[in-house]
Amino acid sequence: MAGNSIGKLFRLTTFGESHGVAIGGVIDGCPAGITIDLEAIQQEMDRRKPGQSAIVTQRKEPDTVEFYSGIFEGVTTGTPIGFVIKNANQKSKDYSHIKDSFRPSHADYTYYKKFGDVRDYRGGGRSSARETACRVVAGAIAKQALQGISIHAFVSGVGPLKLEKPYTDIDFSKTESNIVRCPDEKMATEMEAYIKQIRKEGDTVGGIVSCVIKGVPIGIGEPVFDRLHAELGKAMLSINAVKGFQYGSGFEGAEMKGSQHNDLFNADGTTQTNLSGGIQGGISNGMDIYFDVAFKPVATIMQDQPSIDKEGKDVVMQGKGRHDPCVVPRAVPIVEAMSAIVLLDYYLQNRASKM
Amino acid sequence: MAGNSIGKLFRLTTFGESHGVAIGGVIDGCPAGITIDLEAIQQEMDRRKPGQSAIVTQRKEPDTVEFYSGIFEGVTTGTPIGFVIKNANQKSKDYSHIKDSFRPSHADYTYYKKFGDVRDYRGGGRSSARETACRVVAGAIAKQALQGISIHAFVSGVGPLKLEKPYTDIDFSKTESNIVRCPDEKMATEMEAYIKQIRKEGDTVGGIVSCVIKGVPIGIGEPVFDRLHAELGKAMLSINAVKGFQYGSGFEGAEMKGSQHNDLFNADGTTQTNLSGGIQGGISNGMDIYFDVAFKPVATIMQDQPSIDKEGKDVVMQGKGRHDPCVVPRAVPIVEAMSAIVLLDYYLQNRASKM
Amino acid sequence: MAGNSIGKLFRLTTFGESHGVAIGGVIDGCPAGITIDLEAIQQEMDRRKPGQSAIVTQRKEPDTVEFYSGIFEGVTTGTPIGFVIKNANQKSKDYSHIKDSFRPSHADYTYYKKFGDVRDYRGGGRSSARETACRVVAGAIAKQALQGISIHAFVSGVGPLKLEKPYTDIDFSKTESNIVRCPDEKMATEMEAYIKQIRKEGDTVGGIVSCVIKGVPIGIGEPVFDRLHAELGKAMLSINAVKGFQYGSGFEGAEMKGSQHNDLFNADGTTQTNLSGGIQGGISNGMDIYFDVAFKPVATIMQDQPSIDKEGKDVVMQGKGRHDPCVVPRAVPIVEAMSAIVLLDYYLQNRASKM
Amino acid sequence: MAGNSIGKLFRLTTFGESHGVAIGGVIDGCPAGITIDLEAIQQEMDRRKPGQSAIVTQRKEPDTVEFYSGIFEGVTTGTPIGFVIKNANQKSKDYSHIKDSFRPSHADYTYYKKFGDVRDYRGGGRSSARETACRVVAGAIAKQALQGISIHAFVSGVGPLKLEKPYTDIDFSKTESNIVRCPDEKMATEMEAYIKQIRKEGDTVGGIVSCVIKGVPIGIGEPVFDRLHAELGKAMLSINAVKGFQYGSGFEGAEMKGSQHNDLFNADGTTQTNLSGGIQGGISNGMDIYFDVAFKPVATIMQDQPSIDKEGKDVVMQGKGRHDPCVVPRAVPIVEAMSAIVLLDYYLQNRASKM
Repeated sequence: MAGNSIGKLFRLTTFGESHGVAIGGVIDGCPAGITIDLEAIQQEMDRRKPGQSAIVTQRKEPDTVEFYSGIFEGVTTGTPIGFVIKNANQKSKDYSHIKDSFRPSHADYTYYKKFGDVRDYRGGGRSSARETACRVVAGAIAKQALQGISIHAFVSGVGPLKLEKPYTDIDFSKTESNIVRCPDEKMATEMEAYIKQIRKEGDTVGGIVSCVIKGVPIGIGEPVFDRLHAELGKAMLSINAVKGFQYGSGFEGAEMKGSQHNDLFNADGTTQTNLSGGIQGGISNGMDIYFDVAFKPVATIMQDQPSIDKEGKDVVMQGKGRHDPCVVPRAVPIVEAMSAIVLLDYYLQNRASKM
Repeated sequence: MAGNSIGKLFRLTTFGESHGVAIGGVIDGCPAGITIDLEAIQQEMDRRKPGQSAIVTQRKEPDTVEFYSGIFEGVTTGTPIGFVIKNANQKSKDYSHIKDSFRPSHADYTYYKKFGDVRDYRGGGRSSARETACRVVAGAIAKQALQGISIHAFVSGVGPLKLEKPYTDIDFSKTESNIVRCPDEKMATEMEAYIKQIRKEGDTVGGIVSCVIKGVPIGIGEPVFDRLHAELGKAMLSINAVKGFQYGSGFEGAEMKGSQHNDLFNADGTTQTNLSGGIQGGISNGMDIYFDVAFKPVATIMQDQPSIDKEGKDVVMQGKGRHDPCVVPRAVPIVEAMSAIVLLDYYLQNRASKM
Repeated sequence: MAGNSIGKLFRLTTFGESHGVAIGGVIDGCPAGITIDLEAIQQEMDRRKPGQSAIVTQRKEPDTVEFYSGIFEGVTTGTPIGFVIKNANQKSKDYSHIKDSFRPSHADYTYYKKFGDVRDYRGGGRSSARETACRVVAGAIAKQALQGISIHAFVSGVGPLKLEKPYTDIDFSKTESNIVRCPDEKMATEMEAYIKQIRKEGDTVGGIVSCVIKGVPIGIGEPVFDRLHAELGKAMLSINAVKGFQYGSGFEGAEMKGSQHNDLFNADGTTQTNLSGGIQGGISNGMDIYFDVAFKPVATIMQDQPSIDKEGKDVVMQGKGRHDPCVVPRAVPIVEAMSAIVLLDYYLQNRASKM
Repeated sequence: MAGNSIGKLFRLTTFGESHGVAIGGVIDGCPAGITIDLEAIQQEMDRRKPGQSAIVTQRKEPDTVEFYSGIFEGVTTGTPIGFVIKNANQKSKDYSHIKDSFRPSHADYTYYKKFGDVRDYRGGGRSSARETACRVVAGAIAKQALQGISIHAFVSGVGPLKLEKPYTDIDFSKTESNIVRCPDEKMATEMEAYIKQIRKEGDTVGGIVSCVIKGVPIGIGEPVFDRLHAELGKAMLSINAVKGFQYGSGFEGAEMKGSQHNDLFNADGTTQTNLSGGIQGGISNGMDIYFDVAFKPVATIMQDQPSIDKEGKDVVMQGKGRHDPCVVPRAVPIVEAMSAIVLLDYYLQNRASKM
C-alpha cells in the first residue's frame, strides 16, 4: 500500500490505525511564510471529531493535534510539517469478535485477501474513517494559505431528504448553526429528526455533501489527465463511504442540449450561467466551483447480521458498540479539507505554467 | 502543464494538438512478454475514430497508429512503447475565426488565461478530444495484458433516454451491433433517432456511458488516497466533457439505509448483492466492478452564439463545420481504455503488497 | 521544499528539525508480512547516535524510536509505518548566536535566501544531519525485508589515511570491532589517533565510506534515467556532507582501456572480474555491488571564524559547543540504510518487469 | 521498466531503440512563452551526433529532430512537446551475431535476465547510448528557457591525460575549437593523438567530462533527499558508461580539514573560496556550480573477446563494425543537456517555496 499520499507540490502523507497508538502525517511542500492559526486548525478538528453531537458516534476522542516540525514562531518555514494525533480511546477488547471474521460491506475481507493474515482488525484498522482526521489538519493549513478563496461544504441530502435549492440561494453562514450542517433551517430540522429515527432503528443512512468554492483565480488546473475536477473527484472519492461525484451540471447535464448547457460570456470573461461549474477544459475560469459528493450509509449497524469468518463458516455479526447513524454531518469538514488540499497543490503547480 | 501522464507503474504520457503534425504518446512500464495483436489495437481505434457512422462527426481521420519502439517481433520488451498518429485532416484555415475569440463552454478562454497569448487555437488544440485517441492505444495494449479480465462499456443514456435495466440483465455482445453502442436493440433505435433529430436541429446532447468489469482478481486497489474507485473516477473525469462519476450504488446509495445497502457474504467470500460495486475500502473484492460516467453535451453547436474576443468585444460564433451531435457512442471505447489503463497499473502495483 | 521523500514503491518521507519537538517519518509501501525485530532497529540507531564514542559529538540523544502504526503483533501489515524520535536535548539557547548570522559552509544562508525570514536556526534546523536518524529507521526495516542480501559499509578513508585494499580482501566482521568502523585493525588505530588529533586542534576532517552489497539478485534496476547506480548515487549524495560517489571502477575506470575494463563472462553468467561493480546498463548482474562515498569535513569547527549576518555585517563565529571531528564513523550505518532503502524499492519495482 | 522519465515539473520521457524505427520523447511541463530557436537545437544535436569527426563512431545518422506538438508559431504553448528522431541507419543484419550471445560489459545479459527472451538485441536496443540524443533535445530547450544561466561542459580527462587546471583558469570559448572538446589547445592535441592511437589498437579508453554552471540564482534546490547536487548526480550517473560523480571539492574534499574547506563569506553573501561547489545544504548559493563526471571505456572494442551465449556456451565476440574509441567528446553536450534539464526543473520547483 503506497497510496497514503496526495498532492504533487503540496503533499500530505498520512499514517495510523483506528486503535493504534496514534495517527498522524507529514505535510511536505507547504510554502514558507504562512502564519498559522493553531486554534483555527483545532476548530476544524472539532467539526469532524466524534462525540460532538447527539447524531454522531459517541466514541470519545479529543483529537488534539501535536505539531512536531515545520512551524517556527507561528510561521511555516517551508520544511515538512510533522503532526500526530494520539488515539485516546483504544478499547481493543471491543473488537475481539471481528478478529477472525469479516463485517459485511467493510474492508475487513479485502484487506485480509490483499495483505495477508496479520491485520489490525481493531475498528477497521487503517480502513477506518479515523484516518480522515489527518486530512482535516492538512486542509486547515491549506485553507490558511489560500487567502481569498472560500470553501463552503454543507449537507444537501440525508437519505430521501434533499435540499433542492440552487446553490446561489444558500446562506452558507447557516451551515454551522445546526448539528446536521444543512444551511436550511427547516430542512436541517427534518434531517435531524430523520437521523435520530434511523439511530433508534439501529440503522444507518447515506447522504450528500455539496461544496461551493468561491474566489478561485482563473487558470488553476492542469489539462488532460490532471484536470482540476478530475483531481477534486479523486480526492472526494478517496473519502470513506463515497460512491459518487458530480460537478457543475453533473448527471443532469447528461440530459441537456448544448444550446441549453453552453455558458455564454459576459464582456469581462465571466459567464451568464455556470453549468460548467467553474472549470473548463480542466482549468478554473474564475466562476464558482461547485460539486456534490454521495456517501453510502455506514456499514456498521446496530442489528445482527449474518457473515463469515476466515474459514468461510457462518458467524453472526452482532450490532453493538458506537457508530455514526449518518456520516455526512462529520464529512462536511473533510470535503472542505480535501478541496483545500487539491486547490493549494494546483495553485502552486500553476506557478510553473509560464516562463 | 505537466498533467499529461497517467499511471504509476504502467504509465501513459501523451502529446499532440488537434491540428498539429501528429498526436502520440509513450507507454512506459509496460511489462515484457505480452504478445501484441496490432489488428485488435486498430479495431479499438476504429471504434473511436471520427466518420465511423452517420451520428458522429464527419471529420476524416484514418487514425492509423505507428509504433516506433518497445515491441519486437510482436512481443513487448519491457522498454517504452512510443507511438504516433499522424493528423491527416489539418484544415487550419477552418479555424481562423476563433484565433482571437473564445467559444462558449470550450477551453479556449481558460487556456488563454493560463498559458498566455500564444495558443494553438485550431480545433481546440490540446484541449480537443482528439487526444483521447492516444488513450485508446494504451488501453488496447492494457486490455491485451489483462488476461481474464473483461471490460464492457456501453451507452446507457442519451439526453432524456435511459436504459433502466440492472446491468446483470444486459447482453454485452449486443453493444457493437448498433451505431449508438447501446446493448438494448429497442433503446438503441430510439437513441439513434433522437441523436439524428438533435443533429438536424444543429444542436448536441449529453449522455451516459456505463461500464462493467468482470474477472478482476481480489486485492487490486490501494487504500486511502489511491483507492481503486478514486483512480477510476479520476481517469473517467479526465475524459473530455465528463461531469460525473458514480460506482456501485452511486448517488442512489446516498438515499439508502445500511441494512439495505450492506452486501452479505456467501461462504466463498462472494456477496449476495453487489451494491459495493466490486470494491470495498478501495480494494476489489472479486465481484463485478460497475460504474456510470456522465457526459455533458458537446459545446460546439451548429447554431450562432454570441461570444467575446480577447478584448472582451462582442463577436458571433457561427455554427459551422463538423461536430459530434452526441459524444457517447465514441466515448465507449475511451471509457474502456481508461479502465484498462487503471486496472493494469493497479494490478502491477498490487505485486508489491506482500513481501 | 517537497524533497522529503525517497522511493517509489517503498517510500520514506521524513520530517523534523534538529532542536524541534521531534523528528520522524512515514514509511509507505512497506510490504505486508515482514516480521520486525525492534531490537535490531535500535541497534542500527545506536550505531548512528551521538555520544557513542570518544571520537563523535557528545550531544546526548538516546534516539529511541516510537512506532505508531503499520506493525501489528510484530509483523508489518502493509499499511504506512509512522514513527517518531523525540529530541531529548533541545538546548535552544545555545544557538542564539546564529539567529541572525550565517555559519560558513552550512546551509544557514541558502535556507534564509530560499525560504525567507522565519527559519529554525537552532542547530541548523532541518539542514542538520539529525534528520538522518529517520533514514536509519527505514533502512533497518528494509534490511529485514531483504533476506539474502547483505550490506557492508565501512570507513575506508579519514583525511589522508586510506585503506588501500581490494574490497575482496576485507573481513567485514571487523567493522564494528573499533570505533572508527574501519575493518582493518592497524588502519583503524591510525585513523582513531588522527581523529583525536584533529579534535584537539578544534578542527574537523573528511573521509570516505565504502560499501559492498552481496547477494543482490540479477535484474534489479530500471534502465535509462532510473539506473540502479544512479538512484544509489542520488541516495548517497543526499546524505549531509557528501561530495562524491563512484561505483565499480569509478574515477579510475576513466583512465582505463576497454580491453582491460571489460568483465569477461564465466559459463554461469558470473564474470571473471567485476569492474562493472555489479551493475550493467543500470541493472544488477548478480555480482557484488560496491561503491565509495566521499564526505567533506564537518563545517562546524571549534575555532573562531569570520562571517556575516543578515545585513552583511561582519561577525565572528565562535568555535564552541559539541561537534563531530569526523563524520564518517557515524555515516557508516546511514550509507547502509540508504542502500537498503534503494534496494528494497527497486526489488519491488522489478516485480512489474514481466507480465 | 518505468524509468524512462526525468524531472518533476519539467519532465522528459524518452522512447526508442538503437535500430528501431525511431527514437523520441515527450517534454511535459515546459512553461509557455519560450521562443524556440530550432537551429540552436539542431546545433546541439550535431555536437552529439555520430560521424562528426575522425575520433568518433562513423555510423551515419543525421539526427534530425521533428517536433510534433507543443510549439506554435515558434513559441512554447505549455502543452507537451512531442518529438521524433528517425533512425536512418538500421543495418539490423550487422547484429545477428549477438542475437543469442552477450557482449562483455554491455547490458545484453542483464536485459535478457530482467525482461526475458524477447529482446531487441540490435546495437544494444534500448541500452544503446543512442537514447541520449533525446536528452540533448530536451536539454537544448531547457537551455533556451534558462536565460542568464550558462552551462559549460568540456573534456578534462582522456585515459591518463588530465587537464590539471582550476576551472577558473579555463577559457570555455575554446571548447568547441577542437574535436576532443578540451578547452586547452595543447592538451586537446595530446588527447586527440591518444584517442587515435587507441582506435588504431582497436581499443577504447575512458575519460572525464567536467562542467561549470554560471549564473544560477540563489535558492535553487530542494533540501533533504532532493538536494540539487543529488539530482545532478543522478542525472549524470544515468548517462551511459558513467561510473562516478563529484562536485565542488569532491573526493579531494574528503582529505581536507574543515578549517581549509569552509568557504568564508564576503559581505555580499558571495564566498571567498568555493569548495562547496555552489551548493550548500542542497541549495544553490549563487556561486559557480562545478562537477566532474567519470566515463568508463566503451565496452565495444575491435578485438576478439571470449564470451557466452544463452546456454552458457563459449562464443567469440568478434571485434568489428563501428564504435567510439572514446566517448567523452560526444558526451560533452549530453552532460550540458542533463544539467539544463535538472536546473530548469528545480528552477520551476523553487517557485513553490514561498507563499
